Formats: sequence, C-alpha cells, structure tokens
Amino acid sequence: MAKEGADMTEETQFMIDKNVGKEVENVESPGSAKEMRAVMLAGFGGLNKLRVIRKAMPEPLDGEVKIRVKACGLNFLDLMVRQGTIDNPPKPPLVPGFECSGIVESVGENTKGFEIGDRVMAFVNYNAWAEVVCTPVDFVYKMPEEMTFAEAAGFLLNFVAAYMMLFEVANLREGMSVLVHSAGGGVGQAVAQLCSIVPNVTVFGIASCFKHAAIRDSVTHLFDRNIDYIQEVKKIAPEGVDIVLDCLCGENTGKGLSLLKPLGTYILYGASNMVTGETKSFFSFAKSWWQVEKVNPIKLYEENKVIAGFSLLNLLFKQGRCCLVKSVMDKLLRLYDQKKIRPVVDSLWALEEVKEAMQRIHDRGNIGKLILDVEKSPTPLMASDSTETSEAGEEEEEPEGDNDSKERMPFIH
Amino acid sequence: MAKEGADMTEETQFMIDKNVGKEVENVESPGSAKEMRAVMLAGFGGLNKLRVIRKAMPEPLDGEVKIRVKACGLNFLDLMVRQGTIDNPPKPPLVPGFECSGIVESVGENTKGFEIGDRVMAFVNYNAWAEVVCTPVDFVYKMPEEMTFAEAAGFLLNFVAAYMMLFEVANLREGMSVLVHSAGGGVGQAVAQLCSIVPNVTVFGIASCFKHAAIRDSVTHLFDRNIDYIQEVKKIAPEGVDIVLDCLCGENTGKGLSLLKPLGTYILYGASNMVTGETKSFFSFAKSWWQVEKVNPIKLYEENKVIAGFSLLNLLFKQGRCCLVKSVMDKLLRLYDQKKIRPVVDSLWALEEVKEAMQRIHDRGNIGKLILDVEKSPTPLMASDSTETSEAGEEEEEPEGDNDSKERMPFIH
Repeated sequence: MAKEGADMTEETQFMIDKNVGKEVENVESPGSAKEMRAVMLAGFGGLNKLRVIRKAMPEPLDGEVKIRVKACGLNFLDLMVRQGTIDNPPKPPLVPGFECSGIVESVGENTKGFEIGDRVMAFVNYNAWAEVVCTPVDFVYKMPEEMTFAEAAGFLLNFVAAYMMLFEVANLREGMSVLVHSAGGGVGQAVAQLCSIVPNVTVFGIASCFKHAAIRDSVTHLFDRNIDYIQEVKKIAPEGVDIVLDCLCGENTGKGLSLLKPLGTYILYGASNMVTGETKSFFSFAKSWWQVEKVNPIKLYEENKVIAGFSLLNLLFKQGRCCLVKSVMDKLLRLYDQKKIRPVVDSLWALEEVKEAMQRIHDRGNIGKLILDVEKSPTPLMASDSTETSEAGEEEEEPEGDNDSKERMPFIH
Repeated sequence: MAKEGADMTEETQFMIDKNVGKEVENVESPGSAKEMRAVMLAGFGGLNKLRVIRKAMPEPLDGEVKIRVKACGLNFLDLMVRQGTIDNPPKPPLVPGFECSGIVESVGENTKGFEIGDRVMAFVNYNAWAEVVCTPVDFVYKMPEEMTFAEAAGFLLNFVAAYMMLFEVANLREGMSVLVHSAGGGVGQAVAQLCSIVPNVTVFGIASCFKHAAIRDSVTHLFDRNIDYIQEVKKIAPEGVDIVLDCLCGENTGKGLSLLKPLGTYILYGASNMVTGETKSFFSFAKSWWQVEKVNPIKLYEENKVIAGFSLLNLLFKQGRCCLVKSVMDKLLRLYDQKKIRPVVDSLWALEEVKEAMQRIHDRGNIGKLILDVEKSPTPLMASDSTETSEAGEEEEEPEGDNDSKERMPFIH
C-alpha cells in the first residue's frame, strides 16, 4: 500500500526535537512579555507543515477579550484545515484552532461582562492553539466552577453542535431514534449524552470495534463501522430512524437518507471521508466530492424526508449567529450544572505533540475529545516509537486498524 | 400562443348537458339503494376525461366507516391526478378525491368509535368524489358541532399539511418568518392562520394581484407572483427568511433555498408548476423535472440550510403515519374550537361542475378551498359563458390573467 507523504514519516518524531529549530529557542522563557508560543501551520499539507513557534502576543481590540490559554480543543476539522480541504481556507501561515479555555488577562475597550481573572471558554476564528488568544466578547463564556480547563476546551464545539443538530435542526422528541456515526468521537459522545436527557430515545452508534467496550453504555445499540450498518439497523428498526447525524459524507449520505423514517432528518455536519491520507490527495478529495450524491427535492417530497447541513463554524464566523449560540449555551450550561452532560476528554497533549494528536484523531483512535494542554511538557517517546506512527494511505480500508499507536498515548482516563 | 388540448374546449360546457350521456340517465333517482353518483376519471388527460356516472355503492369492510358524503375537497393535486403527473398513479378508470365530509351511514366489523349519524370528515385514498365513501376508521374524524360540511371538506388536507410543515418539519417558533407561495390557496390560507397563533411571526405571501385585496389581512407582506419576489423579500428581510413553503417546484426551489436564513428550512410540498397546460404535456413535464435543481449536501453544510419534502398523501396512504396525523388533528381541532383557525371556502360546486371547478383551480382563480357539494344542483350557465373558459397554454406567463372567469363562479362569500 503506497503511503502518501512517505517522505515525512520522520516528522512524527517530536517536532520540538528536530523541526522547530531556532523559532522556539526561547520556548523555555515564557516570561517574555510580548511573545508567546503558538502552533503554526506553514502551508497546507502533511504533519510536517506544523511547528511550534514564538510569535508576537496579540492585544485585544475593541470588544475583544484577551485570554491566557490553558487548553485548546482539537477537532477533525483541524485536519481538514491542515490539508486545505475546507471551503475558502485562509492563507497560511496561520495558527489553527477554533476553541480554547483559559483565564481572562485583559479586556479591550467596550468589552462588557468579563473581568481579569475570569475562567472562560471561547470560540476563536483560528488562532486558538497559542498561549494567548484574543476573541470577540460574543464568543466568550464563563466556565462553571466545577469544570476543568480541559473539559471546557472540549465543551463548546462538540456540545453546541450536538445540541443544535438535535434540537434546533431536527427537533428531537420523546420516543425518537438517532443514528450517529463516530459515536466514540467528541460530537458522538455529546450526542449520546444529550439524547439521554430526552425520555425513551434510542441511539444507534457506529464506531470502531476497539472502542465498543469503552462506549457501550453511552448508546442503545452499537455497530462496527466496517460492517453493513444499514442491514443491522434495519433488523432492529425496520422502519428506519428519525435522525441520522453524519460527519463522514460520501456514500454515507445516500445510506443515511435511505435509513430515515418518513419525516426523518439527515444532517451532514462534516466530511471526514474527504481526509483519506495523511496529506491532501487531490484524487481522493475529488473522488469524495464525486461520491456525494446530489439530492432531488422531488424525491424528498415523495418520501417525506429532510436533509440538512450543519456547520457551527460557518454559523458563528460567517453567518453571525452568536446570539443563537449564546441561547444554546445557556441551556447547555444548565444541563452541565445539573450534571446531565459532561465532556469526555480522550487525552491531553502538549502543543509540541500536536502532530501525534492529529495522527490519533486521523486514525480515529480517540474516545471523546483531544485536548492541547498549553502548560503540559511533551511526553518523552518510548523506545518502540520513533517513526512507527501510522499514516493512513488513501486505499486503506480500516484506518483505525493501526491501534497499537494507542498504547503510547497520554490518556488521562 | 398555442393551446394544448384545443380540441377539448367544448368540454368546458357542463358535462351534464353533453358528455355524460346515458351513464347518468338515472342521476335524478338517488333513491336507488345500491347505486350512487360519482365523478369518474376515464383516463389521464384533459377535462373531457371527467364525467359523472352511476356506479355500485361500496359497503364497508372490516375496520371501515361508510359515509354518506355531503362535501368533498378539490385540491391542486387532483389536477395532477387527472393528468397522470403524480408518482405511481393508479390505473384509470378511477374516482378521484382524497377528502370528504358527511354522515356515518354504517360501520364495518371491528370499527370502533363511530356511530350511525355521526357528522364526520375523512381522508380517502381516492374515491372521495362520490355520494358514498368507505374509508378505514383511522382516517375518519368527528366534526366539531359548529363546523359546516363545506368547511369540514376543506379542513383536513390543508390544515394538517400546513400544521405539519410548520411545526413538525420546520419547528416554527416566536419571531420567525415564513414565505408561502400561493398564499391565496387552501394551504396558503391555512399557513397564514397557523402562523398567526405564534407570536411575532412575519408571513411573506406570494399571490396573484387580483387576490391581494381579499387576502391582504391574512399575511404581513404580500407580493405579486409575477414580480421578482426574491428582490422584494430581501428589501424587507436582507438576511432572508426562516421557512419557505413551496408548492410550485421548478426554479422556485433554487430561489427558495437562496432566500433562507442560516438554519432555515425550505419545504417542497407540491409541484404545481408541472401542470402548465390543460392536458399533460410530456415536454412541459420533462422540462419541469429538469428545472428542479438537485441539491448538493455539502452546499447545505456550508450554508447551514435544510431542505425537506412533504407529501401528506404519501404519509397517510403509503407510509402509514395516521397515528401521527391523529395527534396533529387533536391539536387542530382544539385550535378550531378556540376559533383560532377556520377553513376559507372559495366556492361550492355540484359534482357535475367538477370541470369548471378544476379549471378555476388551474387558473389559480380561487381564494381558499374549492368544494364539491354533493347535494348541489349545477348552476345554469350564463349567456356569456359557453366555451370561453381559459385553458392555460404551456407558454403562458400569467395563467391567472384570465380572471373574468371568476365572474360566473358560484361564490359562497
């Protein structure tokens, strides 16, 4: 099996050891007032495009909050940003990352509601993976007292997306059924928790076999992602399901629509099938797009079906819906206070370990959320590691097959 | 401008005068116990395919209710049935009609909940346009005391469809905005009334100019269907609307999607643009299908949009969702009792006038619902009538332009 980007396998060693060079030579002196550490994406491509650098610390503009970052969320979307496979990507070099938690360090002019020292979590339109972040006040939320920084960094995108899909787009109610792909991932686990607050909801989860033991209790029925899940779901629910949540895209769109009950809703909220190899492959990318079956509205009419797309980032940063998101966050924070929901954190990684973390989410090795812990030191590699990290080739059938990489991951559970 | 089916213009005269022939020779002796009058569609095509015949009266099977029909609803869909442009049409000859009201005459074995003499309204899977109808008990509802038979025959399809689209598919809530095509039609008026029970909902209605005076109070903003409504709506709502209800299809699908706010829902619930001429034209039919833009799910994802199809008949008769419809009817009947909703009846027609009624709905001359009144005698033609009824050609830009046909219609308002 040909590996994409085979010339980069050496990149899987800690970049702090080899790649970062003098850009991070001052990394040990965080006292420098005007500089900070940040993860930099030098250009679209493989893991070798990522490095930790020192760069000028931002200062808050009017209406912004400056946050001393403690933890950042890492999402599958960050892989797509790295590869440049998102819609209208910004021009690199750039600092990736869309969410973080930390402590308010200062506030800009006309910034109300926050004080220095507040523990906060925030959406950021890029630039989250850094020691300091500035973001508009509308994207910042106070953390509940009991919430850790790691949990907070894993809360925003996953729970807001899960909640809005279930309750804003699809109108989940008592007695309904939900099918969720990547049930072991951050959104999947948030979906499972939110479904459990509605009486009598059946959750069909699809996940890699090795995760089943860990997440079995979070869903009603669990299926291996490598089997024909259509047949298995139909054995249990011959009429289909009410809601399908799909972050894969490709052929799963047609499958998802076919699994819907009348009046059921299919929601596409990601396209992780577009990421097949370690680097962007134009061929595999084009193939994925090609595989997306376009939908004839008249077929929806005849079958009484609903198809929706959901992108929280576009909603926040392109479509200006932060008020709506705020109202959703109010509800989510109440649920957290009532101990009905809680982010599942898979593992914590130093900024310098961002490549390992990305490889883990690429290999679908995670259960719950991957967190970049800004204050964490890199975990030394074990003897068996060095260049052995899997790089999924585009022909690969079971990207999660290479699960031995799990063994060296710094789990917190 | 070429007219389709020009050889049938004489058909617009009362069929009872010329066309029905001996099949209805006993029409004046309704006392015959085993026979009844019914509208028969002899084959798919123009108005000349319709006639009133006498045929054997049905008897209720297990679980059915036998209804002495007082009134039947006439919907745009009945035109599509006549032309054979619906999905999987049954084989003619057939008796059209999907809803009626009347009095229970007998009940089959194992039929609970109804007694002889009950005033009822019912969904029927064809065969509604007759003096007697048998239909499964799950499709039958008791009429509120204050409701007339004409109102009841216009209640079911329009209000259930409007309610389910607004509240089951699209989740209408306070402060939202709704755009509805054919605002003067039966569904359009039901949508307008249901929107008025939710606080602060803005309704954008599109209708032919000559209806504006009559329906102006039912909606917030009213636009002529011949203008560029996209521009006009955007002047008032630059961000777009939350819900678009489209019974036209064709190019309106793309327009509707483009008018949606993020998280907005476009619902296709009919395809009346497929009916362009008096008879089915394969070319115009194919063109309409061609014009239906297929939707790329990834575009929905990027734009945070929802597209849905809604067919109440398929839901009831193919997909077995009468329990869900029953729960909706419970809510609608409460709203009727509270005088919050009431069917708008455009006009009453004898069975023998079904062609005139169909022409009127084809020409979009109606405001509210057209009703076939089974006990009504045909209205004599006036001198100015005879063969002058418009038959919309497929190139016609303004099918409602020929509005003088309104003048001779037997309005009840």
